[in-house]
Amino acid sequence: MRFIDLRSDTVTKPTEEMRKAMYEAEVGDDGYGEDPTVNLLEQKAAELLGKEAGLFVVSGTMGNQVALLTWTRPGDEVILESESHIYYYEAGGMAGNSGVQPFLIDGEEGVMPIEEIEKAIRPKGRVFPKTSLIVLENTHNRAGGKVLPLEYMKEVYEISRKHDIPIHLDGARIFNAAIYLGIPAKEIAKYADSVMFCLSKGLSCPMGSVLVGSKEFIEEARRKRQRLGGGLRQAGVVAACGIVALERMIDRLVEDHEKAQNLYNFLKDIEIFSVKKPDTNILKVRIKINKKAREFLEEFKKYGLLATSFDDETLRFVTHKDVSFEDIEKAKEIIYKVWESIS
Amino acid sequence: MRFIDLRSDTVTKPTEEMRKAMYEAEVGDDGYGEDPTVNLLEQKAAELLGKEAGLFVVSGTMGNQVALLTWTRPGDEVILESESHIYYYEAGGMAGNSGVQPFLIDGEEGVMPIEEIEKAIRPKGRVFPKTSLIVLENTHNRAGGKVLPLEYMKEVYEISRKHDIPIHLDGARIFNAAIYLGIPAKEIAKYADSVMFCLSKGLSCPMGSVLVGSKEFIEEARRKRQRLGGGLRQAGVVAACGIVALERMIDRLVEDHEKAQNLYNFLKDIEIFSVKKPDTNILKVRIKINKKAREFLEEFKKYGLLATSFDDETLRFVTHKDVSFEDIEKAKEIIYKVWESIS
Amino acid sequence: MRFIDLRSDTVTKPTEEMRKAMYEAEVGDDGYGEDPTVNLLEQKAAELLGKEAGLFVVSGTMGNQVALLTWTRPGDEVILESESHIYYYEAGGMAGNSGVQPFLIDGEEGVMPIEEIEKAIRPKGRVFPKTSLIVLENTHNRAGGKVLPLEYMKEVYEISRKHDIPIHLDGARIFNAAIYLGIPAKEIAKYADSVMFCLSKGLSCPMGSVLVGSKEFIEEARRKRQRLGGGLRQAGVVAACGIVALERMIDRLVEDHEKAQNLYNFLKDIEIFSVKKPDTNILKVRIKINKKAREFLEEFKKYGLLATSFDDETLRFVTHKDVSFEDIEKAKEIIYKVWESIS
Amino acid sequence: MRFIDLRSDTVTKPTEEMRKAMYEAEVGDDGYGEDPTVNLLEQKAAELLGKEAGLFVVSGTMGNQVALLTWTRPGDEVILESESHIYYYEAGGMAGNSGVQPFLIDGEEGVMPIEEIEKAIRPKGRVFPKTSLIVLENTHNRAGGKVLPLEYMKEVYEISRKHDIPIHLDGARIFNAAIYLGIPAKEIAKYADSVMFCLSKGLSCPMGSVLVGSKEFIEEARRKRQRLGGGLRQAGVVAACGIVALERMIDRLVEDHEKAQNLYNFLKDIEIFSVKKPDTNILKVRIKINKKAREFLEEFKKYGLLATSFDDETLRFVTHKDVSFEDIEKAKEIIYKVWESIS
Repeated sequence: MRFIDLRSDTVTKPTEEMRKAMYEAEVGDDGYGEDPTVNLLEQKAAELLGKEAGLFVVSGTMGNQVALLTWTRPGDEVILESESHIYYYEAGGMAGNSGVQPFLIDGEEGVMPIEEIEKAIRPKGRVFPKTSLIVLENTHNRAGGKVLPLEYMKEVYEISRKHDIPIHLDGARIFNAAIYLGIPAKEIAKYADSVMFCLSKGLSCPMGSVLVGSKEFIEEARRKRQRLGGGLRQAGVVAACGIVALERMIDRLVEDHEKAQNLYNFLKDIEIFSVKKPDTNILKVRIKINKKAREFLEEFKKYGLLATSFDDETLRFVTHKDVSFEDIEKAKEIIYKVWESIS
Repeated sequence: MRFIDLRSDTVTKPTEEMRKAMYEAEVGDDGYGEDPTVNLLEQKAAELLGKEAGLFVVSGTMGNQVALLTWTRPGDEVILESESHIYYYEAGGMAGNSGVQPFLIDGEEGVMPIEEIEKAIRPKGRVFPKTSLIVLENTHNRAGGKVLPLEYMKEVYEISRKHDIPIHLDGARIFNAAIYLGIPAKEIAKYADSVMFCLSKGLSCPMGSVLVGSKEFIEEARRKRQRLGGGLRQAGVVAACGIVALERMIDRLVEDHEKAQNLYNFLKDIEIFSVKKPDTNILKVRIKINKKAREFLEEFKKYGLLATSFDDETLRFVTHKDVSFEDIEKAKEIIYKVWESIS
Repeated sequence: MRFIDLRSDTVTKPTEEMRKAMYEAEVGDDGYGEDPTVNLLEQKAAELLGKEAGLFVVSGTMGNQVALLTWTRPGDEVILESESHIYYYEAGGMAGNSGVQPFLIDGEEGVMPIEEIEKAIRPKGRVFPKTSLIVLENTHNRAGGKVLPLEYMKEVYEISRKHDIPIHLDGARIFNAAIYLGIPAKEIAKYADSVMFCLSKGLSCPMGSVLVGSKEFIEEARRKRQRLGGGLRQAGVVAACGIVALERMIDRLVEDHEKAQNLYNFLKDIEIFSVKKPDTNILKVRIKINKKAREFLEEFKKYGLLATSFDDETLRFVTHKDVSFEDIEKAKEIIYKVWESIS
Repeated sequence: MRFIDLRSDTVTKPTEEMRKAMYEAEVGDDGYGEDPTVNLLEQKAAELLGKEAGLFVVSGTMGNQVALLTWTRPGDEVILESESHIYYYEAGGMAGNSGVQPFLIDGEEGVMPIEEIEKAIRPKGRVFPKTSLIVLENTHNRAGGKVLPLEYMKEVYEISRKHDIPIHLDGARIFNAAIYLGIPAKEIAKYADSVMFCLSKGLSCPMGSVLVGSKEFIEEARRKRQRLGGGLRQAGVVAACGIVALERMIDRLVEDHEKAQNLYNFLKDIEIFSVKKPDTNILKVRIKINKKAREFLEEFKKYGLLATSFDDETLRFVTHKDVSFEDIEKAKEIIYKVWESIS
């Protein structure tokens, strides 16, 4: 059976153009800084985000973990939203790799109240950890692909300047945010000192993310990447896909958002669900009846639809390149069938 | 000026009897396990808490940190209340020393909802940290010396057995809890796998805490203590105070609670404050007017009263041996004066 | 200018066959364990090394670091040779990532004296770290591609069993060792509990290594890889090269060894150098005159030859696929010219 | 049986004067910086060592570990002698607490060759750890209480300035070195950026050490001490002993050295031993016959003499306050008896 896979945009497969780019990629040993394709990707990524320099990393988690290692020291504290990816889904890496503790703030749809951020900065004093970083996530995964308002980014940035604390932006899906806001990604990135974005989600690369920031930051980040084992050799073969992604795959994200809207318009009328209108390509669907997410997922799967859950009461559907508008129609049919079978 | 010091019960000075005990203490080299006074204290502490073995440590923070190091591995997650001492006041040690990340649950007066605890246990899966410890704090400092109900301890214990996750009890003030509940401390301790309690707070020792647990746990904890630099030599001189404390100073905590009630009865009628009836020796006083805690503290100090704050809006008063009932009367006068001068 | 690049076998570029394999690779999301090409590579690698399971990692350093994270706990000690790659060239990762300290033993050409290994195991006792791993490196890079005798591997293995301490083999170039010894790699690997080998050195893949061991070990290693940020998505595109490497590139290593012998036969007669007959593809050339390695390297480069140094007095030449026998002849001419210009 | 205890100078018990000082000590809460006796000790210690500030810590290990935490970041490398206490006897703390890796240099009697130190500084480069500290140990324990020549200290200092790398001096027994050299301890300390010395060894305090350095360094060290759990309360009771030690116990170390010389003069004529003339109070005695150290120690113990071993072939005797010249005579008799019984 061919499945309609709405589990994640990470499942997207490389395009024909990417495969050709891999096949033809000019490569060198990135351990000596000599892979021209990696160098080009890092440069293009930095420019696109309005930063001085870039570092190709094999995953979003590595980009975030390298940023934490570079900005902090063990025993420090990092302010971030209670359900942010770095805290929730990175295998305890912030503490395990960097020795830093989160100061968690419950956000409203991923948006931490501004005044809470300032209050979260620890006073000086021997018993307190030092607050050394603020992390934002835009779009916010567990908040259902929520886009942080630009004005909000700016306000957080102002607090961070006032207290001399850098901001790292987990921008795994920053281009989804940029598309939604109708602005270039660099307009978002300018309110952060470092940004990680993924080539491998909606942009459809087989792997890879880029961390961008100042030259000095990236130089140190490169050392930290090495320590984690993220140093690469002829990585141009995958970086080549990244270049295709930056050139060809950003604008098409608008389609993913349309597919999500389409699915939303269907789901909002299903009484057993409660669903928020999505900003981007992630649908967060709360189950209003006494049936676990996992039971729904099993039923969907029987009919050929894959999805995941945020928790026992909440389903997640993610739209992307490898699910067509036609697939969305089929997905709706399947969801409808499962709903009927339950009622 | 002699100050009435209600900042903390940590300020208590050793009694004459303790000083004599120090003077006369039989000592040996604890590095070789040969200090008879340390050994006796560890044994007495273990018995009192109903555990197999004990380990003398120089501070409550060290006891907690050693427990974390012993129970966990880097990248693990520890469930604890959002304002627990280990998370809030131990200089980022849980992440900095042990590499573990907190799963924070907002408690109601320090009591994490039972169902939240079970939900906080992470599912298996590569991206999730492993939940390897539950921490309780009894009495709970930032909840105003709140005593966890015994039935609650038992319920958490049952969850922990079901999921095979150990419980560490930060029992810095466990004897205050025991006095309040009118039961021996071991009745509380039996719902935890390891317990740290302090000799240096209400019990008035100049320094020191004891960590208790199974023989195997304590043996490993002794190694971890060494690594942190907590291994000692003729520590019998301070352990001697600990023995006095266990024999003579527990029952007198009831007085500290009476002093707190006395002060509470006064404070509850002051309209600019909102104050909870204390279980033990800590008063948490919310300021209802637009004046910062620090301003009150400065005013109090001018008249000879010392206190601290939980945050900008909340004052903390802690009663203890070195503040007499007479001192409490004077403290009330000072507070009254400051209130008047404000109004 | 086209350079003859003898800096490292890491500079090898993917073959046409590999590029085709990448282009055609069947892929899936390895985050869900669904990339068939990655799964196949991991299975093939495990079989080839005689282990239960394999884990694809993006670099040799990551494979080694993941192994350390999996076998040890912070504060432990790892026995390894003074100039082993893990200690020397992994950016402090053993301490920085895993919190473990090396017990270093000076080897003779990379071979730690057997009796020293047993003596290096720490006694029990609070002040001592726990010895929790022995690391071997075969072939040994800084010893000039030295192959550890099979009998030696067996002896170390016996010590390790006696003391119940696992062995990790840094087998970045294990196939060079196997070729030299004329045995299958699994005959070497059987004396280790985990083995890391590289696809990206002599085997010429653009990137990647595989860590192999028991199912249980690999399962935990997969979690540690995630924490370091080494989890991947459609990694089949690069794993496909790995499969080509395992099928087509191992036997050809014999040529690299021949090139090294060829160069050795030339170098041994140059009086300003002292050079050991190489076992495999790495030449370690000591400079006997008062001239720094870096000066030689600069001269070589002017004429089109690239090499590196082990230290100020020692040059390193590494032969590989992308340097032909003809290139070796040219390299000899260049070295001869530089020698003449110096004398 | 009363034992003559030559295991270590850590076994020394507090003097009557110290006990009185404890009894009478003026104390306060050091958590608030208010213990006058601790403050006085820290000030006196700093002055005596010629540094700006001091920090009282409960053990030498804690002093060293706090210094490492303050000077380094995880992934860094520290240059130190192969058998230095920090590497050998601190439970893996340098890696476990600070995440730093040792660059070990084999010393001649604890003295690392100057040229080796400079060569040990790692080049810049992604794969190398950053060298961020040089550690010296004076007197050097495992080298048999060896005093580092002052000129040597100066030379290392000059290297450290040239490369902008701080020096930490593990001066657990710095006063033994000062007595031997006939100079004030500050003359030694001036060649280090931070110094730890112990109150609890030859100086006979029940516990405690002091870490000294610049104000800025000590301020940060105080935070690190807190994180390890080394923050204290009414520590004046033990600090009081420290003040007695600094005022009364330094000059008497000369006696310990005399006792060691006395014992040396006896041991050097025992043919089954090979013993170096001691600089200070530690005798390192190599066994020249095929009998393990542990067997000797057991025999000695039967007759009432306690000692320890450096390893299977080497005995250690340490002289101190609690072993009189008369005891030394008895020790000699016992050693003679054991020797006879063996021959």
